[in-house]
Amino acid sequence: MPSGEEVLTHEETERPWIALGDAFRDGDEAAVTESLKNLSHEEQRHAMAHLTGGEQAGIVELITASEAAQLLKHLPEAQAADILEEISPENAADIIEAMPEEVSADLLREMHQSESEALLAELDDADEADHLRELTSYAWDTAGGLMTQSYAAFVDDAKVGDVLSELSGEAERYGDMDVQYVYVTNASGQLRGVLRLRDLVLTPRSRPVQDIMQGEPVSVSVNDDFETLTQVFDDRSYIGLPVIDEQGIIIGVVTRQAVREANAEHQTEDYLHSAGILGGEELRSMPMLARCGRRLAWLGPNIVLNLIAASVIAMYEDTLQAVIALAVFLPIVSDMSGCSGNQAVAVSIRELTLGLIRPTEYMRIVWKEGILGMFNGFVLGCLLGLIAGIWKDNVYLGLVVGGALFLNTMLSVLLGGCVPLFLKRLKVDPALASGPILTTCTDMCGFFLVLNLASLALSKLV
Amino acid sequence: MPSGEEVLTHEETERPWIALGDAFRDGDEAAVTESLKNLSHEEQRHAMAHLTGGEQAGIVELITASEAAQLLKHLPEAQAADILEEISPENAADIIEAMPEEVSADLLREMHQSESEALLAELDDADEADHLRELTSYAWDTAGGLMTQSYAAFVDDAKVGDVLSELSGEAERYGDMDVQYVYVTNASGQLRGVLRLRDLVLTPRSRPVQDIMQGEPVSVSVNDDFETLTQVFDDRSYIGLPVIDEQGIIIGVVTRQAVREANAEHQTEDYLHSAGILGGEELRSMPMLARCGRRLAWLGPNIVLNLIAASVIAMYEDTLQAVIALAVFLPIVSDMSGCSGNQAVAVSIRELTLGLIRPTEYMRIVWKEGILGMFNGFVLGCLLGLIAGIWKDNVYLGLVVGGALFLNTMLSVLLGGCVPLFLKRLKVDPALASGPILTTCTDMCGFFLVLNLASLALSKLV
Repeated sequence: MPSGEEVLTHEETERPWIALGDAFRDGDEAAVTESLKNLSHEEQRHAMAHLTGGEQAGIVELITASEAAQLLKHLPEAQAADILEEISPENAADIIEAMPEEVSADLLREMHQSESEALLAELDDADEADHLRELTSYAWDTAGGLMTQSYAAFVDDAKVGDVLSELSGEAERYGDMDVQYVYVTNASGQLRGVLRLRDLVLTPRSRPVQDIMQGEPVSVSVNDDFETLTQVFDDRSYIGLPVIDEQGIIIGVVTRQAVREANAEHQTEDYLHSAGILGGEELRSMPMLARCGRRLAWLGPNIVLNLIAASVIAMYEDTLQAVIALAVFLPIVSDMSGCSGNQAVAVSIRELTLGLIRPTEYMRIVWKEGILGMFNGFVLGCLLGLIAGIWKDNVYLGLVVGGALFLNTMLSVLLGGCVPLFLKRLKVDPALASGPILTTCTDMCGFFLVLNLASLALSKLV
Repeated sequence: MPSGEEVLTHEETERPWIALGDAFRDGDEAAVTESLKNLSHEEQRHAMAHLTGGEQAGIVELITASEAAQLLKHLPEAQAADILEEISPENAADIIEAMPEEVSADLLREMHQSESEALLAELDDADEADHLRELTSYAWDTAGGLMTQSYAAFVDDAKVGDVLSELSGEAERYGDMDVQYVYVTNASGQLRGVLRLRDLVLTPRSRPVQDIMQGEPVSVSVNDDFETLTQVFDDRSYIGLPVIDEQGIIIGVVTRQAVREANAEHQTEDYLHSAGILGGEELRSMPMLARCGRRLAWLGPNIVLNLIAASVIAMYEDTLQAVIALAVFLPIVSDMSGCSGNQAVAVSIRELTLGLIRPTEYMRIVWKEGILGMFNGFVLGCLLGLIAGIWKDNVYLGLVVGGALFLNTMLSVLLGGCVPLFLKRLKVDPALASGPILTTCTDMCGFFLVLNLASLALSKLV
């Protein structure tokens, strides 16, 4: 049934959200399901991104809970969480129940506290709700937040044959799992050892698993943070490690893959933060006012910092009035130094991530960036000075502008190199705060250097 | 034996490179080996980063090839490749032979062509050299570049029992592998099916594997690019997929984990590119001149772009001379618009990565960013206009400055949103080029708007 909109038929395959949106507006459940089924996960994500938040929520309420669970699993987390907040808690609870626990926990963590509580209150199984509440309480990038609950564990006196037939019998349950290790616990669930599948296969089936388990298994604690996990997996070649709680009871498995994925998310966050996107991912399907507000939250403080920096210019209005050509070079000197400093920021953040530098090693930065800043500052200063000197046929203008860029470049690479270390020690995200701090300082100093040097050489410039 | 340097004993544990460097300078192989053995991989990386390129190479030449292989595996790839270029091709070849093939291929890919050729010529096994040459020829983020060669494959008439005992007998070889699937080929190596470990375990051992294999296995082609791989793993829940060549012969396995890691590397590259770090990772242990040159390669074109933008100011020197207060607001308007535009760039790059937007969907950007730009531009313009107006007690100055920021913000978010899509279509890296293009345009337009509006209202401003 065609909707009122103008639909270009030959573009329909390119714009799958049109069919999906039409089916939804017609309230045609079968058509919605059908139209989703015809799309790959990537096309589903693309299509959903082009519908409004209300339409997205409506579609999710229209289809069955298990279809909705499948759909949400492949959407960006921020979007899936928004949808769960939008629909009724009863429907959201049904969808959460149809998901693997770790996916549910990720989405609940992304939701507002009050909304996720309302959802959990609607779960049929109160134990399940408590369990999810506990999972949600772990920060997303800790062992508790990254662990999967899909793992195989057996009590130590279980027979090899029982374990093998259990594993095969429950093939469906273990099907999605990356079962490379099977864990062995004592009767109260405390981790005692680990079994390798290949050892299981070649052992007589009547022997108890404790005979062939590897004792004293390496494990991580549920509250271990991302840096600890990175280090543990870096130092050993395990694919996965058991996660234990305070009592030594195994409560999950964290895989190398999960840690890598968390690393990718951290990188993404760094990138978005450094560009001034705060408060989680921004998708253009989110409500306009929320997007405006979140971007302004970053721009607002920035305008204040910009005003502070530019106030330096106001203090030198007389100098500027006398040599108006300086106005051309003020933004160039401050911009170029900002660029040089940002390169140093990026290298410092990268070296911190790789563990090549510790947050206390300022002297190394001063040494390594100082020489580089002197060299690059000299090259760029000569270039800009030459251009300025030739343009106004005044060698002193060249010296002032070139000298200011030289000094300011040195300063900004030193600052750019050190600020991330300093922020890291203060436990402030370097990707988030380094840029504004650096830009404000290099703008101020750049303006000051150009105008102060000019006022010193004023008689030669006019 | 203490070296001539001043060594603070209580800091020695904090500065492991001192002991390592000392042992190396003494030419004491045992002490170097011992000192490396006492460090975790992360500490080794930290220590090596603090030595010069020459010292790093010297240490690698001093220890055994297998120790060196272990060490290099945990260093950043760029650093490991530099070391291999620095040492003699004979030594480098021994180290490459002691590494898993996929690690070797990654490092060879990172090296300069001539150096990697010299190394390959020194390999004892010419077939191995050809094989590595072939692996190195695949781009790092394609199926060929990401695949591992550690996989288990059996001919279709092999018996279940033989497969099981082969797998267990070669436990050592398969130990490091993520063997979740075992592949079945015909006699000429063409992929025919896939076996699941759990099916193997429960089948009578005398049956041939073709009876229990899953036929028509999903596979990827060796030249499949990163986007194809992402989509394949996105659409299916496989942990790994076989990689086949043009003849359908299985030549490797690409895992979901490898694709995720490649994604993390892409994110890192995006971040470094957007900050102006080109030509691969920069580490502060690299030679100073190379670091200066690579940073200048980005700064040089930038200074030209800056000059072009600032030339707008030169065209309005009279206006500026008349209303010198404008000089304070020129950098503010251009910086703030740049920040707003960069937010839009980051959201576009992110949405492109997630597949939420296609490179042709400009209208969506115009619509979504246009409204946002109007709103945020209005808020920021009012704020800055108010400040300007109150400062000089001139409502027209406020209107000029605020109006310019309003218009320029709208323009820059539109541009920032669209430029990444445009660059993506041109197959230019959006993270690399969006920033400079955006900044130049918003600087030019910002200067033009402020100064042109001011010259129109000049009589009211002076």
